[in-house]
Amino acid sequence: MGAAPDADRAARVIYGVGPIRELVTQQPHRIVRLLVDERRSASSTTDVVVKLAEQARAARVSVGVATREELDSLAGEDARHQGVVAILAAFEYADIDDVSASIAASGRPALWVALDGVEDPRNLGAVIRTAYLVGAHGVIIPEHRAASVTAVTAKASAGASELLPIVKVGNLVRALEALKKHGVWTMAVHASEQSKPLASLDCKGPLCIVMGAEGSGVRQLTAEHCDFHGVIPMANAGVGSYNISVAAAMALYEVMRQRG
Amino acid sequence: MGAAPDADRAARVIYGVGPIRELVTQQPHRIVRLLVDERRSASSTTDVVVKLAEQARAARVSVGVATREELDSLAGEDARHQGVVAILAAFEYADIDDVSASIAASGRPALWVALDGVEDPRNLGAVIRTAYLVGAHGVIIPEHRAASVTAVTAKASAGASELLPIVKVGNLVRALEALKKHGVWTMAVHASEQSKPLASLDCKGPLCIVMGAEGSGVRQLTAEHCDFHGVIPMANAGVGSYNISVAAAMALYEVMRQRG
Repeated sequence: MGAAPDADRAARVIYGVGPIRELVTQQPHRIVRLLVDERRSASSTTDVVVKLAEQARAARVSVGVATREELDSLAGEDARHQGVVAILAAFEYADIDDVSASIAASGRPALWVALDGVEDPRNLGAVIRTAYLVGAHGVIIPEHRAASVTAVTAKASAGASELLPIVKVGNLVRALEALKKHGVWTMAVHASEQSKPLASLDCKGPLCIVMGAEGSGVRQLTAEHCDFHGVIPMANAGVGSYNISVAAAMALYEVMRQRG
Repeated sequence: MGAAPDADRAARVIYGVGPIRELVTQQPHRIVRLLVDERRSASSTTDVVVKLAEQARAARVSVGVATREELDSLAGEDARHQGVVAILAAFEYADIDDVSASIAASGRPALWVALDGVEDPRNLGAVIRTAYLVGAHGVIIPEHRAASVTAVTAKASAGASELLPIVKVGNLVRALEALKKHGVWTMAVHASEQSKPLASLDCKGPLCIVMGAEGSGVRQLTAEHCDFHGVIPMANAGVGSYNISVAAAMALYEVMRQRG
């Protein structure tokens, strides 16, 4: 565990006023350089991008200008960057014990998401985005045979990967055991014989929801180490399972609903 | 409304044993040709792909063999086609009155999803997939400034676009009024002043949930024609809104939960 550099070679960027404003406000040191459309930077002081650049400078972020083409190229195809792109610092993973200490200090019941072998970095990013928005405390991912936080993940998470602690572990079962020592219950979300509908399980206490990869689901060894087993109801099972991002969203919604 | 050919030029395909088996079982006429990995077709009769090809032939589907490279090319990059790809017939949109008649015959309360200007065909496909899995009766999309059911949509929906009625309308407000004549209540899912948490609203009766595009949300004119306004709670609003597919999943989950 602990800090580890991102193996991905592409520049990690996020874009758009909303995500960048959030990052400037909360974690400005995560931005290596903020690039603003050269035409925007010369326009009125009421321009949201100009205001954002000012806010970034005040937070000691390095701000520069770029052409529309440079921003398009950095943000990637179809990205609505709104004239502002942030180049991110190397990613740093978090530590379960550190995050647990801040959760304890907050006085709120823990909410973790553990992903058992999600390989698509876009799916990982989508889950991180939802987890952040619902107020989860962290996402746990395995080191092997699973997506890491790359440039694709950062973009797919709309910047949430820089705001929510992500823990990368060599052994997911051991990580779940570490959570249990912090008083966290673990719930596998999958269709097993012992699974009960999610809404019938108590999700109010400190909880880690464990989601499996699409297709294969939560691995047996992982499931054996979970305290509860919850299933998301499905009317038509023919076209397979819910997309992992959709299943995580439904499970996190249920937790939010119960906690009120 | 009624039948309309798909404007997309790329071949519409779905792939993988699960989605294709479902389509062969429910709507075999939607398959123009089923292509099976030439190596699979020569192997044992217990092979799931060989069995699927037999089932397809029995349902009068045209079945042929293809090389792994041909299947890869048809299914597209990163697609786990499992050695089987179905080329789909031109898409046919459904009609509100026709679908309403079958809902009435089923005796179950209606569940529709209306999308107000979702432009990304992958998001459209993802919503269709979830809507099908939760047992919704249909998805309504506008004709203009919105994604249609294309090759990308069919793939992103994992074949659900061929199983769930999709209605394309010139005017979304008029479509909502048509639903009301069939006794369906309309609920806009968005963060407006009059919105109440989704879980506090009664979703048991015949219902159409109306979702807006990411960023812009449900348009004002559309919202004014909705009976209820529901909001999905959010702890951290900084990185913007939930992805449309995630928001639709949470709303549909809530409906499922209430209906039991």
